[in-house]
Amino acid sequence: MQAPEGWEIQRHPLGWSKRYAFANYAQTRHFLDLLTAVSEKLGYYPNLNFAKTYVVIAIQFENDAVDPERAKFAAAADDSAQQTRES
Amino acid sequence: MQAPEGWEIQRHPLGWSKRYAFANYAQTRHFLDLLTAVSEKLGYYPNLNFAKTYVVIAIQFENDAVDPERAKFAAAADDSAQQTRES
Repeated sequence: MQAPEGWEIQRHPLGWSKRYAFANYAQTRHFLDLLTAVSEKLGYYPNLNFAKTYVVIAIQFENDAVDPERAKFAAAADDSAQQTRES
Repeated sequence: MQAPEGWEIQRHPLGWSKRYAFANYAQTRHFLDLLTAVSEKLGYYPNLNFAKTYVVIAIQFENDAVDPERAKFAAAADDSAQQTRES
């Protein structure tokens, strides 16, 4: 399964990561809140690294194989970023 | 100025970091919400790295010197962690 556009692939362990930049802290907070909902829906909590105007998501896969369930987080995060920037 | 107890010191650039573990995601969220209030009060947004049951705070200082204002974030974070675990 290919990483979605804009996601970087890490090896050992296999993972996808992406950095999102935002105009201000309010947008960053809004994005983080949307990600919380995604996590609760998918039951998966990736490592999130953030400060005032950026969020880096690191999705890690076990056994060096892309898990389709976890992979869903990537597309949902992209949608959440778009939603954040449009709101 | 010494790093408070439990905070690790990084060099080049100078910084303090600490990892907080929590029993569940609800506690992690509560702690992050308290940190948001600290950031808004101090006007400083350190790098936060978290997943379901941990948060790592990385405070960075400029010009290799401890800035007392930013240093306040460390003590406030410790208080917030205690508050989180007692609630």
